[in-house]
Amino acid sequence: MTLTILGNNSALPAFDRHPTAQIVSVGSEVILIDCGEGTQIQMQLYGQKWRKLNHIFISHLHGDHYFGLPGLLNSMSLLGRTQPLNLYAPIALQAILDQMMLAADSQLNYSLHFHPLTAGEASLLVENKSFSVKSFPVEHRIDCHGFLVEEKSPHGRKLLPEKCREYQVPTYFYHRIKNGEDYERNDGFTVKSEWVTIPALPGKKYAYCADTRYTESFIQHILHTDLLYHESTYLDEEAEKAAQRFHSTSKQAAKIAKVAGAKKLLLGHFSSKYKDLQPFQEEASEIFSNVRVSKEGECYEI
Amino acid sequence: MTLTILGNNSALPAFDRHPTAQIVSVGSEVILIDCGEGTQIQMQLYGQKWRKLNHIFISHLHGDHYFGLPGLLNSMSLLGRTQPLNLYAPIALQAILDQMMLAADSQLNYSLHFHPLTAGEASLLVENKSFSVKSFPVEHRIDCHGFLVEEKSPHGRKLLPEKCREYQVPTYFYHRIKNGEDYERNDGFTVKSEWVTIPALPGKKYAYCADTRYTESFIQHILHTDLLYHESTYLDEEAEKAAQRFHSTSKQAAKIAKVAGAKKLLLGHFSSKYKDLQPFQEEASEIFSNVRVSKEGECYEI
Repeated sequence: MTLTILGNNSALPAFDRHPTAQIVSVGSEVILIDCGEGTQIQMQLYGQKWRKLNHIFISHLHGDHYFGLPGLLNSMSLLGRTQPLNLYAPIALQAILDQMMLAADSQLNYSLHFHPLTAGEASLLVENKSFSVKSFPVEHRIDCHGFLVEEKSPHGRKLLPEKCREYQVPTYFYHRIKNGEDYERNDGFTVKSEWVTIPALPGKKYAYCADTRYTESFIQHILHTDLLYHESTYLDEEAEKAAQRFHSTSKQAAKIAKVAGAKKLLLGHFSSKYKDLQPFQEEASEIFSNVRVSKEGECYEI
Repeated sequence: MTLTILGNNSALPAFDRHPTAQIVSVGSEVILIDCGEGTQIQMQLYGQKWRKLNHIFISHLHGDHYFGLPGLLNSMSLLGRTQPLNLYAPIALQAILDQMMLAADSQLNYSLHFHPLTAGEASLLVENKSFSVKSFPVEHRIDCHGFLVEEKSPHGRKLLPEKCREYQVPTYFYHRIKNGEDYERNDGFTVKSEWVTIPALPGKKYAYCADTRYTESFIQHILHTDLLYHESTYLDEEAEKAAQRFHSTSKQAAKIAKVAGAKKLLLGHFSSKYKDLQPFQEEASEIFSNVRVSKEGECYEI
């Protein structure tokens, strides 16, 4: 699983930094998290293929997180996309997109399945053979969600022979039940694969937390991730402004990473007032050692 | 009067060419015509100041002509704009912008005056001391307007002594009436400045025609311009496709320039299928000699 940063700035593009968008590559698919203005151009620039993209997640409806979406949706249609696309976003986005299509007297050449995010609620949004994505509420000025992407173990599952014996699974079926098949006994009882197997090695976990003020209210949803992306709009000296504007500082992001037991922290969503981002690295390091300032175009191994 | 091209491509960004946007600089102001995705970034890149921008014109509601507008409007607000802004666009845009502001629970810090363009009608949209802008209908798949920007003569007006004598304006008032003041006679009759003066030298004229299929229906609105920008989405071999899609070819754009008596033609709105634009230059030159392929970032003297 990898993460590619397409944009890591807050609302105002500045110093060649773009508004938020990022690509998580997992299995044979990519997923897009947020879609600031210019995302389709950034995708071209950094070699991200829309043909692998079937799921887009929008955290909230401040423009720097979705103004690139209408253009991307249109362009994929013009480029011949026919495969369906799933969009997970606050409900108000549906009416905005509908009105835009109506004004253009246009239709997309593919099905766009809109999945509304429920304000204030955590949900399992998608689960397939390769990954799952869950949403969880963060604390911003308007409804906003973070996302947890969990990779399914690429190493398959491990058989528990003791459990197999307990459930009377015959040895000739061990190979099949290990690969996910259920076993139906002669007495009609079905033994589920997951009762007698465990993941061989856990898949990787990535959590995206933006935009939010400092809060531990969602810690339960982001425990022990391999990589945690947390917004850090401001440096520590602007902690008061950060709180007023429902944003976080470098040190607050680091504290969340520490409390949540993250393996690594990536900082982003920088205010356009900062040209030099090195102080973010330095401040966060005081609290959490394995931290990086995100960089556009960079691909991070999760 | 100058024209700076911020984007000259059609719907799909390609070969580092962006969707349509252009800045006309006239007097101490700039005006923006169309606002494709990324316009605010292109404005930064090419040193265009939003503080001089008081009028934005949107030709039609296909996304490549306005998807950069919400971001630009927001950014100007965040950057502290308080001066009012005039937006001239098809009426459906107003509801789209309103819904976006509602979803973001935000308001602009300045007044946005929305002036709807009337479908199928030509209108005088704005007239001030420096310039006027008129709209005229072109022929596209949805309602679409071209724009004519006319500079007010920067050389003031020329006195007609014969007319002054006829209207009994005393010679001591000649200087003032030449500079635009009206003269009130002793008998109470007011002599208007424009009755006894004419423009010293005519101002420059710039016409923008995009997107449109080949038609001479709007020629009357673009006669004898100093610069004519006409879309040429396709080369001549794609004339049939151009007609079907309500677009024009290189040769058709050149023919319009010839019929309208333009001094100079600038081509734009190129399909993303063309990497090399030199053939546009060559084809158009066969019909109209003073032609240029527009280039992003280039500033053209009008």
